[in-house]
Amino acid sequence: MELDEVTISRAILATQMETMVEYLDLDVAVVGGGPSGITCAALLAEKGVKVGLFEKKLSIGGGMWGGGMMFPRIVVQAEAKRILDRFGIASKEFEPGYHVAKSVEAVSKLTAAACTAGAEFFNLIAVEDVVIKGDGRLAGLVVNWSPVEMAGLHIDPLTIRCKAVVDASGHDATIAHMVAKKGGDLPIRGEGFMWADRAEGNILEHTREVFPGLFVCGMAANAVAGECRMGPIFGGMLLSGERAADLAAAAVLHP
Amino acid sequence: MELDEVTISRAILATQMETMVEYLDLDVAVVGGGPSGITCAALLAEKGVKVGLFEKKLSIGGGMWGGGMMFPRIVVQAEAKRILDRFGIASKEFEPGYHVAKSVEAVSKLTAAACTAGAEFFNLIAVEDVVIKGDGRLAGLVVNWSPVEMAGLHIDPLTIRCKAVVDASGHDATIAHMVAKKGGDLPIRGEGFMWADRAEGNILEHTREVFPGLFVCGMAANAVAGECRMGPIFGGMLLSGERAADLAAAAVLHP
Amino acid sequence: MELDEVTISRAILATQMETMVEYLDLDVAVVGGGPSGITCAALLAEKGVKVGLFEKKLSIGGGMWGGGMMFPRIVVQAEAKRILDRFGIASKEFEPGYHVAKSVEAVSKLTAAACTAGAEFFNLIAVEDVVIKGDGRLAGLVVNWSPVEMAGLHIDPLTIRCKAVVDASGHDATIAHMVAKKGGDLPIRGEGFMWADRAEGNILEHTREVFPGLFVCGMAANAVAGECRMGPIFGGMLLSGERAADLAAAAVLHP
Amino acid sequence: MELDEVTISRAILATQMETMVEYLDLDVAVVGGGPSGITCAALLAEKGVKVGLFEKKLSIGGGMWGGGMMFPRIVVQAEAKRILDRFGIASKEFEPGYHVAKSVEAVSKLTAAACTAGAEFFNLIAVEDVVIKGDGRLAGLVVNWSPVEMAGLHIDPLTIRCKAVVDASGHDATIAHMVAKKGGDLPIRGEGFMWADRAEGNILEHTREVFPGLFVCGMAANAVAGECRMGPIFGGMLLSGERAADLAAAAVLHP
Amino acid sequence: MELDEVTISRAILATQMETMVEYLDLDVAVVGGGPSGITCAALLAEKGVKVGLFEKKLSIGGGMWGGGMMFPRIVVQAEAKRILDRFGIASKEFEPGYHVAKSVEAVSKLTAAACTAGAEFFNLIAVEDVVIKGDGRLAGLVVNWSPVEMAGLHIDPLTIRCKAVVDASGHDATIAHMVAKKGGDLPIRGEGFMWADRAEGNILEHTREVFPGLFVCGMAANAVAGECRMGPIFGGMLLSGERAADLAAAAVLHP
Amino acid sequence: MELDEVTISRAILATQMETMVEYLDLDVAVVGGGPSGITCAALLAEKGVKVGLFEKKLSIGGGMWGGGMMFPRIVVQAEAKRILDRFGIASKEFEPGYHVAKSVEAVSKLTAAACTAGAEFFNLIAVEDVVIKGDGRLAGLVVNWSPVEMAGLHIDPLTIRCKAVVDASGHDATIAHMVAKKGGDLPIRGEGFMWADRAEGNILEHTREVFPGLFVCGMAANAVAGECRMGPIFGGMLLSGERAADLAAAAVLHP
Amino acid sequence: MELDEVTISRAILATQMETMVEYLDLDVAVVGGGPSGITCAALLAEKGVKVGLFEKKLSIGGGMWGGGMMFPRIVVQAEAKRILDRFGIASKEFEPGYHVAKSVEAVSKLTAAACTAGAEFFNLIAVEDVVIKGDGRLAGLVVNWSPVEMAGLHIDPLTIRCKAVVDASGHDATIAHMVAKKGGDLPIRGEGFMWADRAEGNILEHTREVFPGLFVCGMAANAVAGECRMGPIFGGMLLSGERAADLAAAAVLHP
Amino acid sequence: MELDEVTISRAILATQMETMVEYLDLDVAVVGGGPSGITCAALLAEKGVKVGLFEKKLSIGGGMWGGGMMFPRIVVQAEAKRILDRFGIASKEFEPGYHVAKSVEAVSKLTAAACTAGAEFFNLIAVEDVVIKGDGRLAGLVVNWSPVEMAGLHIDPLTIRCKAVVDASGHDATIAHMVAKKGGDLPIRGEGFMWADRAEGNILEHTREVFPGLFVCGMAANAVAGECRMGPIFGGMLLSGERAADLAAAAVLHP
Repeated sequence: MELDEVTISRAILATQMETMVEYLDLDVAVVGGGPSGITCAALLAEKGVKVGLFEKKLSIGGGMWGGGMMFPRIVVQAEAKRILDRFGIASKEFEPGYHVAKSVEAVSKLTAAACTAGAEFFNLIAVEDVVIKGDGRLAGLVVNWSPVEMAGLHIDPLTIRCKAVVDASGHDATIAHMVAKKGGDLPIRGEGFMWADRAEGNILEHTREVFPGLFVCGMAANAVAGECRMGPIFGGMLLSGERAADLAAAAVLHP
Repeated sequence: MELDEVTISRAILATQMETMVEYLDLDVAVVGGGPSGITCAALLAEKGVKVGLFEKKLSIGGGMWGGGMMFPRIVVQAEAKRILDRFGIASKEFEPGYHVAKSVEAVSKLTAAACTAGAEFFNLIAVEDVVIKGDGRLAGLVVNWSPVEMAGLHIDPLTIRCKAVVDASGHDATIAHMVAKKGGDLPIRGEGFMWADRAEGNILEHTREVFPGLFVCGMAANAVAGECRMGPIFGGMLLSGERAADLAAAAVLHP
Repeated sequence: MELDEVTISRAILATQMETMVEYLDLDVAVVGGGPSGITCAALLAEKGVKVGLFEKKLSIGGGMWGGGMMFPRIVVQAEAKRILDRFGIASKEFEPGYHVAKSVEAVSKLTAAACTAGAEFFNLIAVEDVVIKGDGRLAGLVVNWSPVEMAGLHIDPLTIRCKAVVDASGHDATIAHMVAKKGGDLPIRGEGFMWADRAEGNILEHTREVFPGLFVCGMAANAVAGECRMGPIFGGMLLSGERAADLAAAAVLHP
Repeated sequence: MELDEVTISRAILATQMETMVEYLDLDVAVVGGGPSGITCAALLAEKGVKVGLFEKKLSIGGGMWGGGMMFPRIVVQAEAKRILDRFGIASKEFEPGYHVAKSVEAVSKLTAAACTAGAEFFNLIAVEDVVIKGDGRLAGLVVNWSPVEMAGLHIDPLTIRCKAVVDASGHDATIAHMVAKKGGDLPIRGEGFMWADRAEGNILEHTREVFPGLFVCGMAANAVAGECRMGPIFGGMLLSGERAADLAAAAVLHP
Repeated sequence: MELDEVTISRAILATQMETMVEYLDLDVAVVGGGPSGITCAALLAEKGVKVGLFEKKLSIGGGMWGGGMMFPRIVVQAEAKRILDRFGIASKEFEPGYHVAKSVEAVSKLTAAACTAGAEFFNLIAVEDVVIKGDGRLAGLVVNWSPVEMAGLHIDPLTIRCKAVVDASGHDATIAHMVAKKGGDLPIRGEGFMWADRAEGNILEHTREVFPGLFVCGMAANAVAGECRMGPIFGGMLLSGERAADLAAAAVLHP
Repeated sequence: MELDEVTISRAILATQMETMVEYLDLDVAVVGGGPSGITCAALLAEKGVKVGLFEKKLSIGGGMWGGGMMFPRIVVQAEAKRILDRFGIASKEFEPGYHVAKSVEAVSKLTAAACTAGAEFFNLIAVEDVVIKGDGRLAGLVVNWSPVEMAGLHIDPLTIRCKAVVDASGHDATIAHMVAKKGGDLPIRGEGFMWADRAEGNILEHTREVFPGLFVCGMAANAVAGECRMGPIFGGMLLSGERAADLAAAAVLHP
Repeated sequence: MELDEVTISRAILATQMETMVEYLDLDVAVVGGGPSGITCAALLAEKGVKVGLFEKKLSIGGGMWGGGMMFPRIVVQAEAKRILDRFGIASKEFEPGYHVAKSVEAVSKLTAAACTAGAEFFNLIAVEDVVIKGDGRLAGLVVNWSPVEMAGLHIDPLTIRCKAVVDASGHDATIAHMVAKKGGDLPIRGEGFMWADRAEGNILEHTREVFPGLFVCGMAANAVAGECRMGPIFGGMLLSGERAADLAAAAVLHP
Repeated sequence: MELDEVTISRAILATQMETMVEYLDLDVAVVGGGPSGITCAALLAEKGVKVGLFEKKLSIGGGMWGGGMMFPRIVVQAEAKRILDRFGIASKEFEPGYHVAKSVEAVSKLTAAACTAGAEFFNLIAVEDVVIKGDGRLAGLVVNWSPVEMAGLHIDPLTIRCKAVVDASGHDATIAHMVAKKGGDLPIRGEGFMWADRAEGNILEHTREVFPGLFVCGMAANAVAGECRMGPIFGGMLLSGERAADLAAAAVLHP
């Protein structure tokens, strides 16, 4: 058989197009492809939720790739080690309670698991705005190719509909800010000083529905709550992603 | 137990430093974290070779993340489908002989497998030059943090020693060009027109030792040989990575 | 009826996707949306040829929008006034033989006519390379979103197949250079000094098939032939586009 | 006849200069060359109003060129289909009430119609400020070449006088903001969330005289009113342009 | 003996790593490598305090290298001449009470003395945030490679613990602003007009503990206090560094 | 009388437009507004030649504004002092034969004299190409607004006709390079080492007609001839401008 | 005599250095080299005041070089024509009361006159701050090379002492803002809409001492007063410069 | 005594100006402030030679500040340890023959020693060209402020005269290239592969007079000779600087 370039092109175009059209309407949109977002998407998909993860960068993984100060290792505390294990991520105990893993392995195994579970990834997609209608509920996202903004072009976006959004966009808490900026009742307190123990301890409490239809997890949860920072320890991220998956699944499966 | 920031920092610094010192001397250095490089590193590690993969970007995966024209799908032909299967990457047959996979899944599962096999990933590392001594053999790489160049700084590099280098740096064939530019006997013909069938058919032949100690694979192999381009079909990439692993393993295990 | 954002999005996605898949295989690909390219595409479509025009910018019209030195007027000589008339572009005789038109009107009416005739426009698409196989004939184009390059991303292109290409890319003669650079037998002489009379007089002769499957028109024709420049007089552009349409139509309709 | 470069140059300079001097004083200045502005200018010209459209970009068409997410299609609802028809823009019904057109065709046919009707286009012109004198009425615009700002130069502007201004500058509502910033009584509420149905439904009501001599249309109207966004559905834009033409014509023809 | 590149690399990596791990926990962290910071670090080290100086630039010396208006000379008044003498920096009396030294000599001799005394320098390190826990005391710094920010990357920082911080970051008073911005009780008045005599006279008074665990010196002290500027006279800088060393040493040695 | 903005605008537009049209055809085009070009234009105008000076920057004066190393003084040797005197530029003898003047005064008085004499200045105008027709003689210039290139726009130029061109564009010898690059018989040797005495001694000899219709003066003359550099001594510049005026005047007045 | 490069260099360095040292202490510092500043400096020097003009750009002339919209002409009304005449600037009456001059001639003749009168020009000098001491009077300027900021360097400034400052820095009113920003009692209202007649009529009233030791003239005067803009009519600028010279001379000559 | 800003400014200006004028004529100009250049300058000054070191950056120290890969340590082999000792730079033996020092300490102590010995440092000075006259000997340098180029300005340089130049500009071998580029007989072979042992062994041989009046040392010596690279081992640099000092001193003291 002779390979044909046009068939290759058609295979890509037609297949992905079908997916894009299919995901104009989904259950949960996870915004941000860092550790909490991937974990959340993986677990939502495992529960049978139709979930799409939207990431503005080309690659999935967010801040985890760089470890701490470009030393590609991460630390996970005892409470969250089970999540490393669950996803087959090797780790070594450095001191009692401090488990060290490689950041490249952590990113790739989390992502692989989410793919296997059926989460759909949309990279190079930026969220420009949110859909809120008369019932005051977050009901969709306004999305665009991120290279459109990178290239300084002005091009209209498209819109997706969803039953819930998980803001896993990190320190910036992008979606929460969009809601707040245009008048949504959603006070954002901003991130506090570095205090890992406190930040890790409280993150599960901050992982919650902060506006009808909007859940926050990971650093976005702490940023909304005015909680402290924690640095390159990722247990809280993983647990927060897990909890957001529980909450969002409950909301969309048994509304 | 109260989490302590300094212990977290020490865990990362001490663990990764040990790895960095350990990998100043290795068997095979793979340069470039695209599909052929990851495949090669995964299979070398499976064979028990001490292998490090050096990637200048923050993330691993190279051009595969974007699929074709930002539609994140790739195509693999029949001959290479067994490699998708081997790494657990789901695919669907679009037309007979054209298997479509998701690019995010392909990248993450290849990388995850390489981690499991024991390959060590060094991201944010740029290769600045090569080590060639009196015997005219490529014997090491001169490396630096890639942000050093991105930030326009002038800072001396460090050097690693290896028994073989696999140039998996894509169209640029970076290492081959470094050798050629300073007088190594290594003619580089440059990439030809797009002709997927021919390019895919010949890539295994071009995957070879092109200079004592230097193997080329993936698009770098085609670029050195003056072969055609192939676009977003990745079978040849995976098979070329596999073959480079065979050749380099043979060279370092049974020299 | 309540307007639904997702239906709007689906209408756009589904409709354009169908067009994109349909135009992976076409008769003539015109590269460049300046006056000669639009004219050529309009006339090809009128003849029933399946033609797509690929333009890397967001807007169609090229250098004609700016007139001369940002004074948005163009001049057309007597021989070509019939083309202005044909497309309903108003003009006024400034001195005998010098017809002045408004550049905004000229651009929009040429483009409107091409749309009516059935030419398909693909804006924001850059041509990265060409397809040339064993028979040494230009058989397709390797294309990508132009914002991909503008944003500094590395993403694989897709490929389209066509029976002929018209290079209407202006001074740069992009496609001709791609063919020449990788070894095609196509000498490119570069543009000469400004000499409007000579340039306008010879352009029809330079509008021809310069490589199997590749026709050049407009300034690209003059650049390949080493002909002079002509400045903001557009008669030759329009006539050259017309002639390229005749030649390319003959080639694809009665090969 | 031998073509003479200097005559060509003189034809352009002299002709456009006459136009520029003539349009230092006009009836209605439309600011912004997107769909609502072009429609407005076309219909004003048809009514015999002396109208100039000022656009800071080189090309006319604004955000319409890119369709939705670079897929060059637009949607128009049933109520506005008559405007597509009026300008000869082909469309296809995707689902009941959703008419899809090609963005390149829509832009070029709207613009062509405005040219035919006698609207004068001034591209590459930026509005820097407004003229408001003792009677507190918007009486003119302070304009400059937009490349002056793009090149970082400091060069004085010129001034045009007009009886009314239509702010069709899109989301930015440029002219309204200029009036408000320097103390004009013109509250600007800013754009709301995405809610196409509501935005399209209310835009005609927001299309009005918001300050003596200043009319707003298109997204600028919604931005001033604090109305929602609507994305790549353009019926409201066209209808708003039509209504602004009615209002401004009434104001200047029967003051 | 044959020099071996890998041993050279290992020597650097292993030695500096040990230092980095050792200094994750220190007595006093001085932030900023200008004249007051270096002086402070030198004198702290002489007192036996474990001190690290963190500088975001590649070189140590700050604004002193450029003298006044790129004329590399500095002036020191009579009261501070003893500090020049102490560090062996040659000077000449220009007019009574005005001692002129060369800026290159001043920078290098101050730095040399600090090295001899045992201060540890960490260049290319940016402070991103501070550690403040339940007792409301500044207890550490959140640090990163400065090229990470220069290269526009998003990578997690690491954390160091210290008993006191000296903010010697100049006009910006970086650390003081970090504390203030996130709610620490630390009013910052900003720098006043130029008035050298007053500024030099009051700087010692402003050199103090402004927040539990945070001392300010040099221009940072004046910026916090709302004091005047002084220009290229450096006596106050040196004396302020000396005083900060006294205060911080007292705080950490006899808490 | 009440000042009217539109009359002001019309006065500027109409007056300058008339000048632009009038100067589409002139005797001598001087390219470059540095000291040699201004001197040349001033003296040509004094001889009754219709002369236009084209300068791509906003201001006239070129490299003379900055003196030597930003110290705004220039030196003129004895032979050329009479030109300073002629234009009323004050100078002081520093050592015998070395006359020092202020650069701001030199620039402004040269320019003022050229204006008085009737030379016409066109600033912000870049020369893009030259007109050479069948007789192989330089017969005109292809010009554009320089902000067009600064803003990265692609806009057609206009053309002016002249009997002679004086290339006074400095080190770059812009016009000479344009002629040479497209095949004109005009070897350009490039500037030599710094050797003021030799450079100043030979410049008059190098000031000559180097191609039919093209005269070079100032540093452009030395660059074409392969002569040495001279630094901030301007006697040669002024004398060369004077000589170019003599030669070009002879050529156009008594051809 | 053989020209010697080192003597040339020494002549420039030694002469300008003497001037720089001499002007560390002056009567009036004029900030900004546009039309009002130059006029003011020229007239102050004619009155025997020791005056220095500080301009951050390389060239003197400011916004006047570009005329209106890059058409290098300016307009001056009847009241100010005597100033054009005084400086020998040719003009032509366009309509009664509207005198048009060439901008290049106006800039160069104003500057030339100021040089002749004895004003000293310091180009490439940026004002960074002001000197205000215990008596609350503006007593000097903090200056630096403007390329220091353009190159992103951090280098200390030097200080000059003066009896009065004239802020002729245009729309930005730089010095007035510096005084206001750090707490000086100087309300700044900002520029109003375009209204040439009003702006020109009131500018003399706004030209005054706005803070002890600080006079404003030209657009800076209108910006401080909240007055309207006027565009490319320069009569008010020239008259304002004249008036500021009268006021500042009175202040320093008969304090 | 009250500190006076103007006296401070005058002290700096007058003192440095005197030095600048004095150093327009010197014995040896060292170009480049890295380790070999500083060592060379220090030792030349110790021998009583009038030496100036010209460095284009703001700080002295060059590539040494960053150690290897931003780990601020350097290695020096046994043969050169005596130079560390001579300058009081602490070091520790890592393995036999490998002495590790801190880069901050090395830079500052070398520089401090050079200052003490009487070498004059000129930072922020770029060399633009060289002086070569009839005898074909390098006789001076053409210098400018480096911010002039950084800011994109065109300003004439000044010239210094010297008896010899030491090119210590590192990999770029700036001065050697300037001589070669304009026709000096000076072949430059470019740097070879990394091979520390060979590079360190041969550098003293390459440290020599390569053109009449031009000595090369440090990496510039190896680059001219086509020698290998060595990375962050600095023994050869220091010894090469020492040898260049011997050679240049001999040339200028006993010509």
